[in-house]
Amino acid sequence: MTTINAAFYRGDRTFKVEQTDVPPPAAGEAQLRIAYCGICGTDMHVFHGNMDARVGLNRIVGHEMSGVVEAVGEGVTNVTPGQHVVVRPLDPCGECPACQRGHSHICHKQKFLGLDTDGAMQELWNAPAHTLHVLPEGMRLDHAALIEPVAVACHDVRMANVQPGEDVVVIGGGPIGVLVAMVARDAGGNVILSEVNETRLGIARKLGFDTVNPAKEDLKAVIEERTGTKGADVVFEVSGSQPGVDAMTAVAATRARIVMVAIHATKPQVDMFQFFWRELKLIGARVYEPQDYDKAIELVASGAIDAETVITDVSPLGDIQQAFESLDSSPTALKSLIKVGEVA
Amino acid sequence: MTTINAAFYRGDRTFKVEQTDVPPPAAGEAQLRIAYCGICGTDMHVFHGNMDARVGLNRIVGHEMSGVVEAVGEGVTNVTPGQHVVVRPLDPCGECPACQRGHSHICHKQKFLGLDTDGAMQELWNAPAHTLHVLPEGMRLDHAALIEPVAVACHDVRMANVQPGEDVVVIGGGPIGVLVAMVARDAGGNVILSEVNETRLGIARKLGFDTVNPAKEDLKAVIEERTGTKGADVVFEVSGSQPGVDAMTAVAATRARIVMVAIHATKPQVDMFQFFWRELKLIGARVYEPQDYDKAIELVASGAIDAETVITDVSPLGDIQQAFESLDSSPTALKSLIKVGEVA
Ligand SMILES: [Zn+2]
Ligand SMILES: [Zn+2]
Ligand SMILES: [Zn+2]
Ligand SMILES: [Zn+2]
Repeated sequence: MTTINAAFYRGDRTFKVEQTDVPPPAAGEAQLRIAYCGICGTDMHVFHGNMDARVGLNRIVGHEMSGVVEAVGEGVTNVTPGQHVVVRPLDPCGECPACQRGHSHICHKQKFLGLDTDGAMQELWNAPAHTLHVLPEGMRLDHAALIEPVAVACHDVRMANVQPGEDVVVIGGGPIGVLVAMVARDAGGNVILSEVNETRLGIARKLGFDTVNPAKEDLKAVIEERTGTKGADVVFEVSGSQPGVDAMTAVAATRARIVMVAIHATKPQVDMFQFFWRELKLIGARVYEPQDYDKAIELVASGAIDAETVITDVSPLGDIQQAFESLDSSPTALKSLIKVGEVA
Repeated sequence: MTTINAAFYRGDRTFKVEQTDVPPPAAGEAQLRIAYCGICGTDMHVFHGNMDARVGLNRIVGHEMSGVVEAVGEGVTNVTPGQHVVVRPLDPCGECPACQRGHSHICHKQKFLGLDTDGAMQELWNAPAHTLHVLPEGMRLDHAALIEPVAVACHDVRMANVQPGEDVVVIGGGPIGVLVAMVARDAGGNVILSEVNETRLGIARKLGFDTVNPAKEDLKAVIEERTGTKGADVVFEVSGSQPGVDAMTAVAATRARIVMVAIHATKPQVDMFQFFWRELKLIGARVYEPQDYDKAIELVASGAIDAETVITDVSPLGDIQQAFESLDSSPTALKSLIKVGEVA
């Protein structure tokens, strides 16, 4: 057993950093010394108390991590101590219809690490070794904490099959929207980002994107003008809002692909006639597959992801409560990281 | 000029059969002696007065036709007099973004023959020769009048890419639903047809389909039971109703393809969360491309389409008014044909 610091979610918008004992890694596990862990929108849902039934009141959250292999359990051969790694935080059942058809990332009984199990907001984390991806030499570990959300964006862009020269509209300029925009741009797309928050629009412009504020301009008219009346070849709906769903069909070219990235808790009204009339495609996309992680690592390494601009603040583990509180209230933050511990 | 009989839509649920003069075929046209013409759902919309602004009050409708080439205009080389043909009733602009990208079947300025121009409910019809498909030797001309709606179904099934052994659910058992079911079965799908009208369910069972009445049984439970909890690999939404839209996501397997065949005049509520969560695809599909006509001709020729069961009645042109009235009120009709004239 090793005594470490860990951040526990205790309900009622409260994280408490406490000492706890970590056992050696079990068979099939690797023990990771965590460097950084990003705060995900899902973690914010936990903070808000929306996921208490799923996570309980004694949970260590965190899945957007980077770290170093400290030790490996019995039978682990894919990593060795000292390697820098990130976790792909999915632990599928292997037996459900989705798993049997090769879609284990959308397993019907998925265990999502850091929600359904304890996660990375602790100095040492024992994680299933099969979930690890080794980082290339020299990649900064703060930048590597972006790989999980970048992999989400890589999956979305791969599902859309964005081609060089295509006109791409991203609806919603939060962390995932901005990452989708960067990955789509790397794939050769001409990206326009639509967002109503002026601070986020400012970040998007700083990142070099053409932007539209649909609260101030007629989004459909702008897209028609910029695409010679054709409309967007690919649309990413990342807003999770009814106006976003209205916009996704309004700006789409005939035979456009629309990727549903957002989580819609209620059932929006959808212009089904446009799907028929213009032969639109809607493509649901969730989390990532191994190749999306490989691509994400490549894009963070190449600088196609401007990590310095995306990461807006870094707080030590002891300040996790303030970090959640300020991210919750801040319109200027994009991605907040927690520096969980010192690594060699 | 040749004097012929033609059926004119005069508004107010009224067709009048009158004599009219047909000129010789112009350059690029073929003059067709019409044998049969089916009554389409769109023609029924015309009858109901819903399309008066588009068709006017002096229109000869009809596009689900079969006939014989009587004469050809200048420059026509793809057909010769005496050949049996059907028309693919699309006349695209050739210049809009859809046409330029090879999707002329969904041209932004499409002229649909028999709606935007006069159609086949007349003894002689001058139609653009580029729209003609020649029929194989020996195909009955009444059966050939099904080729246009069968081509719709072929397009839908091709867009879904139905594979042998896949579980297919067709929501809605009207003429198009039944044809989609037959084409999907020919592609190797295990088809289950969902329909609330017991007469239509009876026809579907007579055609050999497994059926469910979702008003009497829990459709989702039935599909789960018949697919070993997996759900349907492919779903065709042909009902145009909110319950159909609810069912399409409820019965779908992870990564299922859902084809939007129906015309939804209002915006239904759609379970977008399921698209995200199970990575569903929605594919809009409209009319047909040339290869869909080739396939439809093949399926009518092979008997994969049971034309005798699909065609529930045939009326002479002089009885077109009664034919529309009885199809409008009849729960037993599937496809009604008009015998427009005698052909050699
Ligand atoms: Zn995340
Ligand atoms: Zn599974
Ligand atoms: Zn039709
Ligand atoms: Zn066109």
